[in-house]
Amino acid sequence: MKFRYSNWASGMLKSNIAGFLTAAKEPGMLSLCPGVPFPAAYPTEKVVEITGSLIESNPEAIFPYGHPQGTLRCREAVAYRMKKRGADIKPENIVMTAGSQNACDMVMRMILDPGDTLIIEAPTFLGVLDSIKSWGLNLVEVPIDNDGIMTDVLREKLSQLHSEGIRPKAVYLMSNYHNPASIMLSTERRKELPGIAEEFDCYIIEDDAYSELQYDDVDQRAVKAYDTYDRVLYLGSFSKLVSPGFRVGWGVVPDELVDTWNICRPMFDVGSPQLNQEIVAELHRDNWLDGHIQKLIGGYRSRRDALLDALDEYMPDDVTWTKAHGGFYSWVTVPDNVDLDSLIKTALKNKVIYFTGNFFYLDNRHHNHLRLCYSRPDEDVIVEGVKRLAAALKEEMAK
Amino acid sequence: MKFRYSNWASGMLKSNIAGFLTAAKEPGMLSLCPGVPFPAAYPTEKVVEITGSLIESNPEAIFPYGHPQGTLRCREAVAYRMKKRGADIKPENIVMTAGSQNACDMVMRMILDPGDTLIIEAPTFLGVLDSIKSWGLNLVEVPIDNDGIMTDVLREKLSQLHSEGIRPKAVYLMSNYHNPASIMLSTERRKELPGIAEEFDCYIIEDDAYSELQYDDVDQRAVKAYDTYDRVLYLGSFSKLVSPGFRVGWGVVPDELVDTWNICRPMFDVGSPQLNQEIVAELHRDNWLDGHIQKLIGGYRSRRDALLDALDEYMPDDVTWTKAHGGFYSWVTVPDNVDLDSLIKTALKNKVIYFTGNFFYLDNRHHNHLRLCYSRPDEDVIVEGVKRLAAALKEEMAK
Repeated sequence: MKFRYSNWASGMLKSNIAGFLTAAKEPGMLSLCPGVPFPAAYPTEKVVEITGSLIESNPEAIFPYGHPQGTLRCREAVAYRMKKRGADIKPENIVMTAGSQNACDMVMRMILDPGDTLIIEAPTFLGVLDSIKSWGLNLVEVPIDNDGIMTDVLREKLSQLHSEGIRPKAVYLMSNYHNPASIMLSTERRKELPGIAEEFDCYIIEDDAYSELQYDDVDQRAVKAYDTYDRVLYLGSFSKLVSPGFRVGWGVVPDELVDTWNICRPMFDVGSPQLNQEIVAELHRDNWLDGHIQKLIGGYRSRRDALLDALDEYMPDDVTWTKAHGGFYSWVTVPDNVDLDSLIKTALKNKVIYFTGNFFYLDNRHHNHLRLCYSRPDEDVIVEGVKRLAAALKEEMAK
Repeated sequence: MKFRYSNWASGMLKSNIAGFLTAAKEPGMLSLCPGVPFPAAYPTEKVVEITGSLIESNPEAIFPYGHPQGTLRCREAVAYRMKKRGADIKPENIVMTAGSQNACDMVMRMILDPGDTLIIEAPTFLGVLDSIKSWGLNLVEVPIDNDGIMTDVLREKLSQLHSEGIRPKAVYLMSNYHNPASIMLSTERRKELPGIAEEFDCYIIEDDAYSELQYDDVDQRAVKAYDTYDRVLYLGSFSKLVSPGFRVGWGVVPDELVDTWNICRPMFDVGSPQLNQEIVAELHRDNWLDGHIQKLIGGYRSRRDALLDALDEYMPDDVTWTKAHGGFYSWVTVPDNVDLDSLIKTALKNKVIYFTGNFFYLDNRHHNHLRLCYSRPDEDVIVEGVKRLAAALKEEMAK
């Protein structure tokens, strides 16, 4: 039989990333692809230490059905994290989810219908882009520069759309350590965005999954911190601070959305598991997690430095890259005449794999970018990866 | 501001169940509403005993991102459970989810578009009905009788729809201990259904969340056990066998859907947390969970008997009810002239609450049914609840 999929699932089947990633599994392949923590980043020992007595001391918080917003202790822990991001948020406005992708999916389902207009950054996060591509939305790209989403272009597009009778529902953006572009939204633009949303009656969906993994002294306060209009729906995650396998993320939603969330959430999955939330909350006791995050920062900063130093040393002239202040990535720009399809083939031959920039744009056309991820490999492996990539690039540039 | 919801979320706001359930929280209210386990049903001690060493022995299975289908050990445990339900299923065809509601939501998103036709039972499960009501689907009800969905009516409706050029995508049904009707699909109909799906090129979505909580000797083999055509998408859950707060459920999907699942699943939530799945898998060691399920059956059977005996003793003539062979419910039929809106008010005055039957039908109109749930209260509380309800009924019938 020919399986009868929804339009959305049929659209997903056209995605070429799955096939791409099988190449990463070939023996000897050095991967600068997936944005995952380095193996020693997981708090195994501490979790083993606390979990038994955590369950024993309050099984009622773990075994029965829970609140659709998640456990109160975990929402209090999130409120603490939000304060570190400059935003004073009550646990009442926090909703726990199975990671920030899950929060994004649910928030978008609560505000977007097929035919609605959603503004996205160009480039933007692959995971969200891939999903919403086949929702039947009208997706409008606004470019980013070194200071994040270009607010003048955003305002212009919104005006133009409104003049055509089209009222976008939301703007999906990343404020910190942008994935893939690894840039920071400027403080000025952070301050400006909630007012733009208010003016055009839309929402900012702020995806801040890498927040607090900050390696330099930069402003990483959330756009939400400046949201006097309650126009920002904030998405956060413990995937990079604790463990992606725990699937604990959150949303911060305006008062008006809270009751609706509690009615809608049971329809998706009833709620997220409480055990994982309670473990995350318990890791906050005596600020243990803050100390752990400092160790993570050390591990990631040293990997970031290894990458940037290797790029300096091995990359040919005319190649540039962003200098990540946090997060997992660097965004490399190669000369326009380099054929990216040919480059990835040569790179794979050289046993190194990365994400080609096309994936991060709606049109999937030729763009002269590569995303390198330094979060997982050890420093010497990162250096070796850059060497292999630089050799491939030189081979292509000589063609 | 007026929040700009999606049509789906706007539709959800019209649901009246949330308001209804706040009444259940009034002091002294005796609730026969929610389908949740009795407090002693949770395997707290065992989970405390196993969890620390489980995490310690294999942190790689728990902390990093996992497979979109879930952990292999947990899928092997599910394969074991499926065998108890008469179906020989490979772990390769099993997908782990955050409960069966979550599995249902994801499976439906992978096959249904607005405008598509979905066949549902009348009555059907409130949780799914409430969600899909505002998906923009063409929902067609097929009645159930004491032997489950009426396959002759189903065939007739499918023929008629096909003759109109409408090709329903799926039939959503419950095979065991139907919620709310507490009936069993007959063996004959179980055998018949996959062939009907094949004939009309659609799928059976079999929701079997209460399976194995079987109190009498009845055939509870899944429709999936008879599915020679690979037309049944089966949904199962550990919510009632282990803990609803763990959010561990599953789907069984045909070969053709597996790859698509692995592409689509990351878009929803990347995957379900592994810790919970590994705990559930570990509970299968030395068949510990089988013994635990026997204890649960003892606890639920005794509650079921208390309810049925009390109904026998206290209910007025002309009131009938289904005799549950498993699961959590009994479905009470009151005389047609009883005003259900008035009855629930009198019942609330008498400090007992239950679900009015309307909620379980698409049209939400007058139906002469009540759903009583006996899973959580102790036996004496169940008896007291039935007394209060019987008094309310007598008062209404005398009007």
